[in-house]
Amino acid sequence: MNGAKQKPLLRALAGERLDKPPWWLMRQAGRFLPEYRALRTRAPDFVDFCLNPELAAEATLQPVRRFGMDAAIVFADILLVPMALGQKLSFGEDGPQLEAIADRGAVERLRKDGIASRLEPVCETIRRCRAASPEQTALIGFAGAPWTVATYMVEGGGSRDFLRVKSWAYRDPEGFQALIDLLIEATIAYLGIQIAAGAEALQLFDSWAGVLPEAGFARWVIEPTRRITSALRARFPEVPVIGFPRGAGLLYERYAAESGVTAIGLDTVVPLDFARDRLQTRLPVQGNLDPVLLVSGGAALEGAVNAIRTALAKGPFVFNLGHGVVPQTPLENVAALARLLAEPL
Amino acid sequence: MNGAKQKPLLRALAGERLDKPPWWLMRQAGRFLPEYRALRTRAPDFVDFCLNPELAAEATLQPVRRFGMDAAIVFADILLVPMALGQKLSFGEDGPQLEAIADRGAVERLRKDGIASRLEPVCETIRRCRAASPEQTALIGFAGAPWTVATYMVEGGGSRDFLRVKSWAYRDPEGFQALIDLLIEATIAYLGIQIAAGAEALQLFDSWAGVLPEAGFARWVIEPTRRITSALRARFPEVPVIGFPRGAGLLYERYAAESGVTAIGLDTVVPLDFARDRLQTRLPVQGNLDPVLLVSGGAALEGAVNAIRTALAKGPFVFNLGHGVVPQTPLENVAALARLLAEPL
Repeated sequence: MNGAKQKPLLRALAGERLDKPPWWLMRQAGRFLPEYRALRTRAPDFVDFCLNPELAAEATLQPVRRFGMDAAIVFADILLVPMALGQKLSFGEDGPQLEAIADRGAVERLRKDGIASRLEPVCETIRRCRAASPEQTALIGFAGAPWTVATYMVEGGGSRDFLRVKSWAYRDPEGFQALIDLLIEATIAYLGIQIAAGAEALQLFDSWAGVLPEAGFARWVIEPTRRITSALRARFPEVPVIGFPRGAGLLYERYAAESGVTAIGLDTVVPLDFARDRLQTRLPVQGNLDPVLLVSGGAALEGAVNAIRTALAKGPFVFNLGHGVVPQTPLENVAALARLLAEPL
Repeated sequence: MNGAKQKPLLRALAGERLDKPPWWLMRQAGRFLPEYRALRTRAPDFVDFCLNPELAAEATLQPVRRFGMDAAIVFADILLVPMALGQKLSFGEDGPQLEAIADRGAVERLRKDGIASRLEPVCETIRRCRAASPEQTALIGFAGAPWTVATYMVEGGGSRDFLRVKSWAYRDPEGFQALIDLLIEATIAYLGIQIAAGAEALQLFDSWAGVLPEAGFARWVIEPTRRITSALRARFPEVPVIGFPRGAGLLYERYAAESGVTAIGLDTVVPLDFARDRLQTRLPVQGNLDPVLLVSGGAALEGAVNAIRTALAKGPFVFNLGHGVVPQTPLENVAALARLLAEPL
């Protein structure tokens, strides 16, 4: 067994059951941390911050320093890929804004070369984090999955009904496929340079997987993920990929069977019995505490954490939230969670 | 067989398989219709409009007149119940706004008596619609399910993370139960007077059922629905109740088994095989075309409609969308849908 494999996160992702589950939290580097808010004042523009390796590496490591998670996840954003493809990107009060693209012509005008060099600052962040991480802390790289990134590129930001992106996919599936194909290639390239820089595991965030009916889910969620995992496995067979098809609901099982991911992230509403009986029998699972419990704390938090561990810690398992940490999360509740997870069940 | 039972919608909800599926569309009375937009100018305030039986009845009947759906659904809003309970309600550009309530004390200050008289205008709308409906058109009454209505009452409007309402439910489940209990009673009373006024079937909209982990889903979605369906069945055994736990995903089956609903509404992402094999074997199903297909139209619309009918029309089935009609829907696509549904498969 080599040294890297002895990190608890990597052992769990390799299929090992651990007495004390490794843990990290989606959005663990973020606004609920006072030290993060202080750091952000040094680069108020969010894209600048992400592309500043000194600041991004510091943000990546802050939560691990405070709470001792088993993994750090590189501080970046899923929309850096569209930016690297030449789409204008900014972050305002209402979240991200992009100049929406609407047709195949716009896809063809995107920049297909030089993506790696434009995303090089993220790799530098990864190198710095690897150099400065505690020995047992694994470093996770990530990207948005093509469908989710495409929703932002086509809607021009967040959306409630996904009218533009779905309309395009329904009306002109071949044209939309051109965008997805481009994102598949860019994502493979991006994750490849993250691994080369030192990422030891990857997560693919498909935050909007849950808005597609089954046929679209198969074509725009599962198939792009399968192509990405297959290309990465050929080049980097030892690097696990956690797929997170948030909201996939009744399609979680099909995703687990067909997408080629190494492990699967469970959102907040995946029932624990189902996760244990239908997913964990196939691959390691990660999740799935409701982030609101980390805000409210107390007995409900403790009960839910124990229920998750009782159901899932008998197999390969990484403790996490089912969605990102929210800014209103009290620090003491995260500290209480860390203590809970350190206790035997 | 009495006359009412011969209406196709009621036959399907009673468990009968029909060659031509009865159909209606959630939000079929609404902004995509020019005649609705014209009517709204007569009462620009949305609450005033809902409480004006002449205008609300006209809005209810407009889509049926144009497209010949098998059902009309009374024009009203799920937030009329909190309004009748004394909560201030208005509708602006960003959707509904309510004076948020935050604790048990606020629940106790709500008005528990006279709900029926404050909601009497909706009953008058129902009486007018029954008098003016085509003979084969069934009239559907509705309410929001307690959990969904509570989300608006506690968040003060729409929400993305449901932080306030979930925090309350996690931190003080007994206090939150007082709000849910009040909503259960108010909903039973409200649906009872709708039936007395002439509603022939009911739908319970639980639009935010899909944001709760299983324990909360059981307590705040299934159990309140079970208490409502049980009270209604005792008094009005002949009136079917369609439950619509939107986003319930992996918990759809448990809802179907335990909530006591007569039929179940399927959201856009429920896989058809699952609906046929695990839900329709138990009760009639309704759904579940993606509303975006009604915007984009064409071959994708036709293919999806045929796929839904092929999967579900061999059992008791009501064709509908999986979510409401969106304002951008072209009239000709709804007309095309009506023609498609009139053809044999």
